[in-house]
Amino acid sequence: MTQPLRLNPDRLFPADADTRAVARRLYAEVKGLPIISPHGHTDPSWFAGNENFANPAELLITPDHYVFRMLHSQGMAMEDLGVPRADGGPVETDPRTIWRRFAENYHLFRGTPSRMWHDWVYAEAFGIDVRLSAETADHYYDVIDAALKTDAFKPRALFDRFNIEVLTTTESPLDTLEHHKVIKASGWKGRVLTAYRPDPVLDPDYEGFRDNLKVLAEQTGRDTQSWEGYLRALRDRRAFFIEMGATSTDHGHPTAFTADLSKGEAEALFKRVSTAPASAADAELFRGQMLTEMAAMSVEDGLVMQLHPGSFRNHSATVFNRFGRDKGCDIPTQTDYVRALKPLLDRFGSDTRLTLILFTLDETSYSRELAPLAGHYPALKLGPSWWFHDSPEGMRRFREQVTETAGFYNTVGFNDDTRAFLSIPARHDVARRMDCGYLAKLVVEHRMEEDEAHELAHALTYGLVKAAYKL
Amino acid sequence: MTQPLRLNPDRLFPADADTRAVARRLYAEVKGLPIISPHGHTDPSWFAGNENFANPAELLITPDHYVFRMLHSQGMAMEDLGVPRADGGPVETDPRTIWRRFAENYHLFRGTPSRMWHDWVYAEAFGIDVRLSAETADHYYDVIDAALKTDAFKPRALFDRFNIEVLTTTESPLDTLEHHKVIKASGWKGRVLTAYRPDPVLDPDYEGFRDNLKVLAEQTGRDTQSWEGYLRALRDRRAFFIEMGATSTDHGHPTAFTADLSKGEAEALFKRVSTAPASAADAELFRGQMLTEMAAMSVEDGLVMQLHPGSFRNHSATVFNRFGRDKGCDIPTQTDYVRALKPLLDRFGSDTRLTLILFTLDETSYSRELAPLAGHYPALKLGPSWWFHDSPEGMRRFREQVTETAGFYNTVGFNDDTRAFLSIPARHDVARRMDCGYLAKLVVEHRMEEDEAHELAHALTYGLVKAAYKL
Amino acid sequence: MTQPLRLNPDRLFPADADTRAVARRLYAEVKGLPIISPHGHTDPSWFAGNENFANPAELLITPDHYVFRMLHSQGMAMEDLGVPRADGGPVETDPRTIWRRFAENYHLFRGTPSRMWHDWVYAEAFGIDVRLSAETADHYYDVIDAALKTDAFKPRALFDRFNIEVLTTTESPLDTLEHHKVIKASGWKGRVLTAYRPDPVLDPDYEGFRDNLKVLAEQTGRDTQSWEGYLRALRDRRAFFIEMGATSTDHGHPTAFTADLSKGEAEALFKRVSTAPASAADAELFRGQMLTEMAAMSVEDGLVMQLHPGSFRNHSATVFNRFGRDKGCDIPTQTDYVRALKPLLDRFGSDTRLTLILFTLDETSYSRELAPLAGHYPALKLGPSWWFHDSPEGMRRFREQVTETAGFYNTVGFNDDTRAFLSIPARHDVARRMDCGYLAKLVVEHRMEEDEAHELAHALTYGLVKAAYKL
Repeated sequence: MTQPLRLNPDRLFPADADTRAVARRLYAEVKGLPIISPHGHTDPSWFAGNENFANPAELLITPDHYVFRMLHSQGMAMEDLGVPRADGGPVETDPRTIWRRFAENYHLFRGTPSRMWHDWVYAEAFGIDVRLSAETADHYYDVIDAALKTDAFKPRALFDRFNIEVLTTTESPLDTLEHHKVIKASGWKGRVLTAYRPDPVLDPDYEGFRDNLKVLAEQTGRDTQSWEGYLRALRDRRAFFIEMGATSTDHGHPTAFTADLSKGEAEALFKRVSTAPASAADAELFRGQMLTEMAAMSVEDGLVMQLHPGSFRNHSATVFNRFGRDKGCDIPTQTDYVRALKPLLDRFGSDTRLTLILFTLDETSYSRELAPLAGHYPALKLGPSWWFHDSPEGMRRFREQVTETAGFYNTVGFNDDTRAFLSIPARHDVARRMDCGYLAKLVVEHRMEEDEAHELAHALTYGLVKAAYKL
Repeated sequence: MTQPLRLNPDRLFPADADTRAVARRLYAEVKGLPIISPHGHTDPSWFAGNENFANPAELLITPDHYVFRMLHSQGMAMEDLGVPRADGGPVETDPRTIWRRFAENYHLFRGTPSRMWHDWVYAEAFGIDVRLSAETADHYYDVIDAALKTDAFKPRALFDRFNIEVLTTTESPLDTLEHHKVIKASGWKGRVLTAYRPDPVLDPDYEGFRDNLKVLAEQTGRDTQSWEGYLRALRDRRAFFIEMGATSTDHGHPTAFTADLSKGEAEALFKRVSTAPASAADAELFRGQMLTEMAAMSVEDGLVMQLHPGSFRNHSATVFNRFGRDKGCDIPTQTDYVRALKPLLDRFGSDTRLTLILFTLDETSYSRELAPLAGHYPALKLGPSWWFHDSPEGMRRFREQVTETAGFYNTVGFNDDTRAFLSIPARHDVARRMDCGYLAKLVVEHRMEEDEAHELAHALTYGLVKAAYKL
Repeated sequence: MTQPLRLNPDRLFPADADTRAVARRLYAEVKGLPIISPHGHTDPSWFAGNENFANPAELLITPDHYVFRMLHSQGMAMEDLGVPRADGGPVETDPRTIWRRFAENYHLFRGTPSRMWHDWVYAEAFGIDVRLSAETADHYYDVIDAALKTDAFKPRALFDRFNIEVLTTTESPLDTLEHHKVIKASGWKGRVLTAYRPDPVLDPDYEGFRDNLKVLAEQTGRDTQSWEGYLRALRDRRAFFIEMGATSTDHGHPTAFTADLSKGEAEALFKRVSTAPASAADAELFRGQMLTEMAAMSVEDGLVMQLHPGSFRNHSATVFNRFGRDKGCDIPTQTDYVRALKPLLDRFGSDTRLTLILFTLDETSYSRELAPLAGHYPALKLGPSWWFHDSPEGMRRFREQVTETAGFYNTVGFNDDTRAFLSIPARHDVARRMDCGYLAKLVVEHRMEEDEAHELAHALTYGLVKAAYKL
């Protein structure tokens, strides 16, 4: 039986009537604030070219690893969802067939944030009023496909409609930022900025690391076979990114390990990792040293650092061999911050010129390590609950475990961290609702006055993120 | 003063009136569903012989390590509760005295699941309407003792009265399953199945491991001194267990470590551990290799695998020396799954013929490791909150930390995991109530529609467990 | 705009009306009970000399690392708050200026326990009825400063007004307890006891360890260069502390590691660490051995042991070099208890003459390790949620994660652990309210009857702490 699709205006607010009433009042004032999205993975070519998106499956299913991993976990072959194979072998190409497979299994997403985001997209972006299911699959496909062909669903139009004030993408230092140049030159007012993500030229384990150093040399005219030349080349690219509008860097290391070697040691280490395959120990030491070098450069040039360690990338050999990297099998691991960050913090932790935003996939570090560190070091701020924890319960745990030690003002608002462009407003809306619900609880339990909660709702939605990311 | 004993019909439901109303509606539909108990430790001889239980203490106190460890933690000698000593030394033998000691200290169980289970047994199974205390100890003893002598309290009668559809016990491959044969031959309709628990012949650290291999050789006629013969013997016993109705295996390793050695390496390792006491490293490696071998056999014969690692067994030297193993001093330790399971998952994680159900005693792995793994690998499912976490708050944390990443459909309903037969309905009732309360919260916070919650309540109670365990 | 300051009588109680009603009833009966503070760091000279406190900043800001670390984390120099530099360099000395800096930044404490404690002190102790802010800073300063000059705000008067039954301070074995002697001799009825904190003479890494052994020799006339003499000297000082009223010892080790060496091994180890700087391994082994020795002495002399491991002390090199130890940069680390405590527990865990109270800064150990250990071993009890977790959410997590396995009766009530004397009643009030709220939830969810909750509210507030600490 076909069921209605309704987005209840009270969704995600606590059930208790008094608490809900306060949450409604808080939310009413932040609901319409512009979206600041300082950390994400949308494709800048969308906003440069402003072409229509191809079809519902290609926009909403095939690239979304939240979606295809869940279907895969219940036994569906990723080929049947059109996920491209590394060897170019055959996969499903009919978008309507892919869409139907998703629709038939939509119940698998019950209780997940993907379900909330998708429902928002269907109801708010496309105006659909029945629930997605096998029965309604074709109706959905037709409505979405038709809409995607219109001007109103071109990337820039959606950007404006979504009330996005700033949207940050993430690029390698080797990227020439062509799309960002086109956007800048286009006269369109939308602010799409890049962020400097140097893993490909900092991490000896990154595919093609040593070749990347050669490209870096070509781009900058620096001798990237020498330690000094290499650092200069990185600085050059930072300067270029800053010129293009970047305000931040982004670092996705396996651990939070940092090092602070002498110049001679660093030089010798660089020689080893830049001339031959690195040992595991050298690779880790080099990544750790480079985080400290990045902090040193940030103190100079003002780029805000972001560090999100702790993911075991491409865990499934089967998936990696068949589909390549970033196909939804990145699994969190336990992550130490206290010992790992000490070398960097001993040098720059008390330096008010540095902002280092820490993320975690290991929630056990919220109250034990991250909140105490951020509650002490002037350079540290805490990024929001991230990735698997970008979810209602994940956000609640973050606030409950962080606030009492770090306060609200050592946090930096919300990151959507997504490549799923249409879900961005849905994700920010979830964060706003959860924050308002959390604040409402503090008010109703008389742990905070309502005027303070109003100030904080605004800060958590808008003020803190602008300040922390210098936007 | 004697207090009444009342089981409130709303127990365990959230306090908020709207949420409670939804929880009641959900619970009304699953309350009466048959019990599927796919993982437990009741004694099959009860159902084979169908004799009356001896007395209240022997049924409800002496064998229940939840009960005697709590009394012990407050200074009571385990001898005073009739726990048998390893050296056969004197312990309390008067069941009424034991019962009185328990009754006088019943307040110690406030806030624990033991208290809820016991109260259910007293009120529902025995119809007692006053609270257990020093004053009411003898009344309790008399009522229970009298009831236990009746036909209505024989094991099969209770099994039927409890509306158990399937009950699984756990046996060593060396077990001849005599009691299960008797049950089968008896004409009684009760479905009591065995599960294959091969630790005694897989774990070099298990008491008598090398002798057990000899017994295995005698039972199967295989040469269990050779790697091939050993594997064949294990397969033979699996076939026998399957013939007797088993659908699952059960593995209680100290860690989740797995290995995937070459045949030559495995053979050499087996030779070492089967001919002399194993080093700690060899024992761990062998256990890890055998998990992968068990997965390979499951792919062939369809037995569902269960793995519950992470317990430091027999932690107290005092208790172990005085009372032997399994006396309530098994303490959880931190457990890694991400690196530990990779060898097995690289071989079989994407194989839809395998079902591997993971349990944990380390709740930090719920959101960090287990939900992401189960939300990706087709072979993985998550067992329920287990042992110390088979409790209202334990269940709530499980759902809150697992659902958003793994969804509901990568979980497998409830396991009671108990040898306390009378408490089985109480335990399932707690799980049903907690799941309905959790779903009700999602409904009232508009994170799910009520029709979906009804479907899920049924699935969490009945559908998922039947499907996952092939029952 | 100036806002009112109100302490709502329902603060910290759950929002749900029925639950709140039960919480109110429970709280009404424990609200007025005397304060037992068995573990803290107030200065005994206050109660010996009974001098007026100097001024608002010196009493409430400069010594409170919760306060100055938060201001520092947002970029304020600790010098500007009057925190004394190790090199005696210049820092702010005007208390009103310091007070204003704090007041201007009072919003940073929103959502933290510091905010609740301070508001209580302002409203209850000083009768202020407007919120602290830049605008009200001078009003606050004037009111507090004037009050501090009166007899009613002398330490003994406050002690009596706060209804403190026992207050424990913490002293080194090398301390001559002069202030405690003065208090005893004064005729004042206030019970201010010492606790034996032997880290300076047990921990080879403690500053001046080997010199401390010499002082110990002088004090006791024992040969502290011999293992036997050293142990005797420690015993002598314990006897002296007991004579002065002590009932407990307190141990702040980096880990929970314990050892149980043979006499010969211990002797050789002591020789190494007492004659030369200890290696890291020797230092850890010696600390571990000494915990077991302390347990042995406690079995003899009855002192209750407290162990709170897991803090990485003085994490910031910058702060340590500039301001010295204990300046708010102690960061928790992951802490194992299961393997660490086994040597000590194998010897004394089942000995009912020992009480060992365990604290943690690593909440992941609550349900995984501490509750199972305390729910088994007669010698173990669990200290309350501590330090960073002495907060509403921290207390809630403690009860939710500990109770179902350890019960209530293996816990020991509340510790304020503070040097901020004026905040003691506020801290105990928060604990009472949170416990009553937790119990109320159990009552309203029919997991406990209200008469039991009343008994428990009393026990958690008063009974358990008196019994556990032998007060």
